[in-house]
Parts: sequence; C-alpha cells; structure tokens
Amino acid sequence: MKDNGKISNAVIRRLPRYRRVLEDLISKDVERISSNELSALTGYTASQIRQDLNNFGGFGQQGYGYNVQTLFAQIGLILGLDREYHMVVVGCGNLGQAIANYATYYKRGFRIVAMFDVNPKLIGIKINDIEVQDYEHLEKYLEENEVNIGIICTTKNSAQDVADKLMAGKVRGIWNFAPADVEVEEGVVLENVHLSDSLNTLAYFINHQDRS
Amino acid sequence: MKDNGKISNAVIRRLPRYRRVLEDLISKDVERISSNELSALTGYTASQIRQDLNNFGGFGQQGYGYNVQTLFAQIGLILGLDREYHMVVVGCGNLGQAIANYATYYKRGFRIVAMFDVNPKLIGIKINDIEVQDYEHLEKYLEENEVNIGIICTTKNSAQDVADKLMAGKVRGIWNFAPADVEVEEGVVLENVHLSDSLNTLAYFINHQDRS
Repeated sequence: MKDNGKISNAVIRRLPRYRRVLEDLISKDVERISSNELSALTGYTASQIRQDLNNFGGFGQQGYGYNVQTLFAQIGLILGLDREYHMVVVGCGNLGQAIANYATYYKRGFRIVAMFDVNPKLIGIKINDIEVQDYEHLEKYLEENEVNIGIICTTKNSAQDVADKLMAGKVRGIWNFAPADVEVEEGVVLENVHLSDSLNTLAYFINHQDRS
Repeated sequence: MKDNGKISNAVIRRLPRYRRVLEDLISKDVERISSNELSALTGYTASQIRQDLNNFGGFGQQGYGYNVQTLFAQIGLILGLDREYHMVVVGCGNLGQAIANYATYYKRGFRIVAMFDVNPKLIGIKINDIEVQDYEHLEKYLEENEVNIGIICTTKNSAQDVADKLMAGKVRGIWNFAPADVEVEEGVVLENVHLSDSLNTLAYFINHQDRS
C-alpha cells in the first residue's frame, strides 16, 4: 500500500460510499464487479474509481474487475475499521440520544463508553445501559479513560467549551453536531454534521430547481 | 441580482456558513464587517468571500465592508428562507424524533406537518403535538396536502420506497438520513446526511493524523 499521507481528502471521502455499495453487493451474493458496474452504482466515473483505488495499490485485475469481499475488507482496513473506537457523547437531548442509539445498533467498532449533560433531568437516566453523567465529571473521566472520539450534541454556545475539555482530555477526534464552527488544535480531527446548513442548502435548491 | 442558475454548488454550500457567522455577529451587535474579518471567522480567503458574494451582485462597499444585517438578510433571501416549508418525517425512531424536535425548536420556516412510521408502537404517539400516523396513510396525506420536503429516517432497505412515495406525492425536496443512496427523478432535490460515511471518514483521519 502506498503512503496514505498524500491521498487527497476527496478520495478518502468517497471510500465510505464505495464500502456501502460493496456491502450491499455482498448481501446480494455478488462476488466480483467491474469499475463500470461500480460506476453505475456510485455515480462516479469508471476512470475515477480506478484512479481512486489505485491510490491504495489497486485491488482490481484486468479482465476480472474487483473481488467484492476483498475490496470491501481492504477499504475497511484503509478507513481503520478494524479497531475499536471509544466515544463519549456530550449533550444528551434527542439528538445526542439518537446518535448514541445509532452508534450502538449500527456501528460495530464505535462504542459509546460514557454520556454527559448539564441538565439535571437527564443526569442519571440510562441510554442503552449507559448512565448520563454530570458534565462536571467529563474532565475526570477523560483523565482515567482513553477516549478516541467526542461527540458534541450541545447547543451552539457550549460547543467550543466542550471541544476544549475533550482536547484537554486527549481526545483526538471530534464529531460535531452543534451548529457552531468549533476550533480545534493541530493533531485533532474535526468532522462536522451541520444539519442547519444542510437544510438551508436544500431550501435553496428547491427554490432554484425550476429555473435551472 | 444576477441569474442564480449559473452559481456553482460549492458557492451555494458556503452561504449557510456565512449566514451562521453573520447571525453570531448580530447577536454581538456588530454592525459591519470586512471580507478580511469574515475570512478570519469562516476560514475562507477574503478574495473567495468577495468572489462568492459578487455572484449575487455583491453587497459590500469599498472601504466600508459589509453591513452585517443587510448581508444576513440577503443571504437568507437567496437561500429562500423568507418562505415556509412544509415537511413530513418518515421513520420516527430516535433519529426521526430528534430531527423533528430540531426543526420544531431551531428552524423557523421549516414546519413539520406530519410524521409516519410502520411500527405499531410508534403509531399514535405524539411528538411536539404531531401524531405519528401509519405509513400506509402517506400517499393519501400527500394527495390532500402540499408538502415541500420529505425527511427519510428509515432503515436502508426502506429508503427508496419512501422516496418513491414522496416523489409520487409531488414532494420536490428529500432530506435523506438513511444510509442508502436514494435515486431521485429529475426536478427533485436530494440532500444526504450520511452519518455512517461521516463517522468512517473521521476514523480514517484519526488513524492517519499522526503520519501526515
């Protein structure tokens, strides 16, 4: 495998989609697939697909295409899905609970280990057997436990404070759902899911669809 | 305002972020702002910001910068946030409920008008005064009511069926949270929020951060 340091973010962001399509193919007992067929399923061009997968040394064979199982497994390895990630959720309202449930039931390898909130009504309740703790305990928890990913589901105004506490506690990955532009220090990875931006963009395209 | 038909998707996708930053500035009573200051707040270059806003005729004045209130309002108009959108949620598990709450409390102008599920345990419960209906009723509901946006929070396997029913019912915007690549017909706008892809990408960058 080539040095991954040089692979563009755009390529990396396409990998989960390839993987999703391959997972579907596995469930349909498809054994091999050409880049043209992958193109039809993903919407990317066949040449882009070949180029993308060549970044990692390529897994295809001329005249055969790709072995679905192998490619699925290799992409999982590239993405780092062969290890376990410990995650904490901060902000346990509806969205925090939804994300916790989602991770628990659909994302093997991504394990919620603790949940935190400031709201006395939420502190003490259990979500999938994880008790919501007082946000005051976050620092201590991070001192005593290794956490890889912090999920921020708080309001806009609390998001940076939460991110700062997570980073002080050596959390290197932040999955931010708060409608705020959180700043992270070097070496910390930030992945935003800005629902508001997504919905506003949708509104724009609905309004301009007829005119284009 | 210039013809919006020619504006690239990339520009459109930056607008909600500008708007979010401007909203913060308004809450801090900031009256005007230069493209350099906007650059520091958004991470985009000043020249990109000027270029982006020039697409819409530009709202800045040499030596003054942008009036925060005016720019905020104009971007809202461009995005189409001056009207109301009627939305239905299909799939009322945790995620569907979270999205419904989110829209109800944080997104003025985006109104949840109905919710649907196949699960007998969910049919009949009320979420923010909206009663969850049997999914069987979706078709009839869409015949009798104008709906602009359908929010899909179902499992992967149901997503396309839901999208087809929404489109048959004249819904022109689909906000898809199901981990599936839904196909839409021409004239329908699809906005995906693929949580799984986002988390898998985060995993990759956490693993490769140290090496880059």
